[in-house]
Amino acid sequence: MSFREDGAAAVEWVASYLERVGDLPVLAQVEPGELRARLPTSPPEAAEPFASVLRDLDEVILPAVTHWQSPRFFAYFSNTGSEPGVLAELLSAGLNQVGILWRTSPALQELEEVTLDWLAQLLGLPAGLHGHIEDTASTCTMVALAAARQASPGARVVVASEHAHSSVAKACRLLELEVRPAAVDGEFRLRPDALDLNGACAVVATVGTTSTSSVDPVEAIADRARAAGAWLHVDAAYAGSAAVCPEFRGHFAGWERADSIVVNPHKWLLTPMDCSTMWSSRPEALRAAFSLVPEYLRVSEEVASLSEYSPVLGRRFRALKLWAVLRCYGRDGLQARIREAVRLATLFEGWVRAEEGWELTAPRPFSLVCFRRDGSDAANEELLARVNATGEIFISHTRLNGRYSLRLAVGNARTTEADVRQAWDVLRREAARLGA
Amino acid sequence: MSFREDGAAAVEWVASYLERVGDLPVLAQVEPGELRARLPTSPPEAAEPFASVLRDLDEVILPAVTHWQSPRFFAYFSNTGSEPGVLAELLSAGLNQVGILWRTSPALQELEEVTLDWLAQLLGLPAGLHGHIEDTASTCTMVALAAARQASPGARVVVASEHAHSSVAKACRLLELEVRPAAVDGEFRLRPDALDLNGACAVVATVGTTSTSSVDPVEAIADRARAAGAWLHVDAAYAGSAAVCPEFRGHFAGWERADSIVVNPHKWLLTPMDCSTMWSSRPEALRAAFSLVPEYLRVSEEVASLSEYSPVLGRRFRALKLWAVLRCYGRDGLQARIREAVRLATLFEGWVRAEEGWELTAPRPFSLVCFRRDGSDAANEELLARVNATGEIFISHTRLNGRYSLRLAVGNARTTEADVRQAWDVLRREAARLGA
Repeated sequence: MSFREDGAAAVEWVASYLERVGDLPVLAQVEPGELRARLPTSPPEAAEPFASVLRDLDEVILPAVTHWQSPRFFAYFSNTGSEPGVLAELLSAGLNQVGILWRTSPALQELEEVTLDWLAQLLGLPAGLHGHIEDTASTCTMVALAAARQASPGARVVVASEHAHSSVAKACRLLELEVRPAAVDGEFRLRPDALDLNGACAVVATVGTTSTSSVDPVEAIADRARAAGAWLHVDAAYAGSAAVCPEFRGHFAGWERADSIVVNPHKWLLTPMDCSTMWSSRPEALRAAFSLVPEYLRVSEEVASLSEYSPVLGRRFRALKLWAVLRCYGRDGLQARIREAVRLATLFEGWVRAEEGWELTAPRPFSLVCFRRDGSDAANEELLARVNATGEIFISHTRLNGRYSLRLAVGNARTTEADVRQAWDVLRREAARLGA
Repeated sequence: MSFREDGAAAVEWVASYLERVGDLPVLAQVEPGELRARLPTSPPEAAEPFASVLRDLDEVILPAVTHWQSPRFFAYFSNTGSEPGVLAELLSAGLNQVGILWRTSPALQELEEVTLDWLAQLLGLPAGLHGHIEDTASTCTMVALAAARQASPGARVVVASEHAHSSVAKACRLLELEVRPAAVDGEFRLRPDALDLNGACAVVATVGTTSTSSVDPVEAIADRARAAGAWLHVDAAYAGSAAVCPEFRGHFAGWERADSIVVNPHKWLLTPMDCSTMWSSRPEALRAAFSLVPEYLRVSEEVASLSEYSPVLGRRFRALKLWAVLRCYGRDGLQARIREAVRLATLFEGWVRAEEGWELTAPRPFSLVCFRRDGSDAANEELLARVNATGEIFISHTRLNGRYSLRLAVGNARTTEADVRQAWDVLRREAARLGA
């Protein structure tokens, strides 16, 4: 195979894909098992050219792709694999670094440390935090809670509101910790006055919850956590990126007092999957929970490896794409992307508010709008199904105070005002057809 | 930025890198902190062109890279980021799929299932196992032990030999399980006759241990595990890839009876970091340990998401590179790579055996040779340091029966007989200079 020739074809494939992704149905229009049925049941005996892979990517795989890169992907938290991030993944794969010890890739370890310092500065976090990258926020939260458990022997409770991400409960199951639900107010925010931290090793505060992007009052929770000796983990996986803009910093007041913080650049900061960043002011607790150096990894350098702060031994060179993104956008470019997403969400929110027969179901601090059509839960669920079946847009749902609610999240860098307008048109059109 | 132009430059960078990687010092010749000192302490305010990233990759980052892609990387378990795998990572980043639910990327989920079925066939594993991909074997082993703990409430012991990978102990710390060491025989293989599985939820058998690539007798261990009702996890992270060749299948006898198996295609099967594959005959136990579906992820399709078998919620499209590798090499190509690595290791082993003043320190079932120079541990340690400081080759060490031992692992697809010959020349030359 000629790497240069195949590489040119692969670059052309991605370039062309990004040009036409807006024309493809956002949600894959296939049934379960449909792709599987189109693939051979056995592996090839002999080598095939890379061109065959590209051909099948188009003909067989692509119909089963849900297009996260589409400008009209509005489900969950929409994201962007930006061009510099995509190309940096090529470089990273070409270098094929394996971060086990510092010496196995000084570049991987030191660039990860430096980019995390850069990102902390961009987000307005204090100096001196220990930062590293994990695959997803699920892992970061698990790391934080494992450190918390280690730091408070015998305290087996983690306190979080029902709006905390499901990964908190998942990590607690793994760590055999009990989740104690904390009450929320009418705007889905954890109520610090109702916090019971008795016997708790940790409390999780969320800035930008998954259902509604509500903001727990971190400052007051930090006071309570400090008094109780509990670890404060701040989950800002989605919204944390907004802290690059000074005008949104108010939502994060108090997070500088957290024991650990997670922010996902692969959500709202233009970095391809996967890149979840975490910082801790108590790295020695992470190291106590995760460091284990066997004989075959003992070396003369006195440098702690990042694997000593993390559940895995080997890590790939994720820092390279984050570095490329931070450089190719700069603070200005990152701020512009965040502001545009919030502007578009604010527009959409205004349209919903102004239209009879529709209602907003939660406040909108960032770029996620929660809303519903007047009528039954079943009618809203049917509306969601119809809207997504058009392939024109893709949105998701949640349940708030027991009622089915729709979610539209703006976050893709290719999304324009026309795309958001189209979403609103599709929603009203399908609602009218439903007679709802 | 022009994606096509920058993409062409990135492809050219990787092509050129892979051409010259054999000329670069294998182990990075930098001191801790050296790269950090060359990088700006603050992030850029304004956007920079991607060309600046490429320039700094050459000038600033590359000297701090330890070249895993070098044909003379013989440390740990050497690996290969093959060309189809590298380009598939570009495609995967361009598509930027996030596997949360089946619907968020039917392609990701079904291709992962199909490629894992293909790989199981290539390795001679039985049909019907449930396969999925994790980042590294550390995670796979943790997943297996979490499922074992869940399946045997109250049994809090995991049995493994001292030669099991350190990730077993790391997972047990996380899961609060006790590690009970199992005795080994003179060839570093777990002794099934000496196994104490009382109160054990799991036993770990390793095919290809990290220190010496020794092979635990899986068949006999499976008998004991079955009788005791303990989960059998087979760690074949390195050596598992060798099962693509029928002539090596004997080492794996009994692994088809395992409850879970891990094999790392990113080690010896030409796939770039990260791609660790695991199979289980008891997927319902994995699902019991990890499934958790919150309201905002409830959908109408009755398809279990791969995240229900895994600690994380979101997964990236790793299957694409494994699919590309399996297709672009085929069974024939994969077998050829394994056979050539074993042939080269066998040659090296022969040279050591024939040379006075050197000894082999462990049997060589696959492509790892353990050896030492006659003399003190300190002299061997000094020899390792000098050899690696030349930059000509990179090897690592372990300790066997209390004695310092050198390790030379053949696994990079670019390694030729001349490279292995050079390794032996460097070792003898430096040993002579040391006067050892």
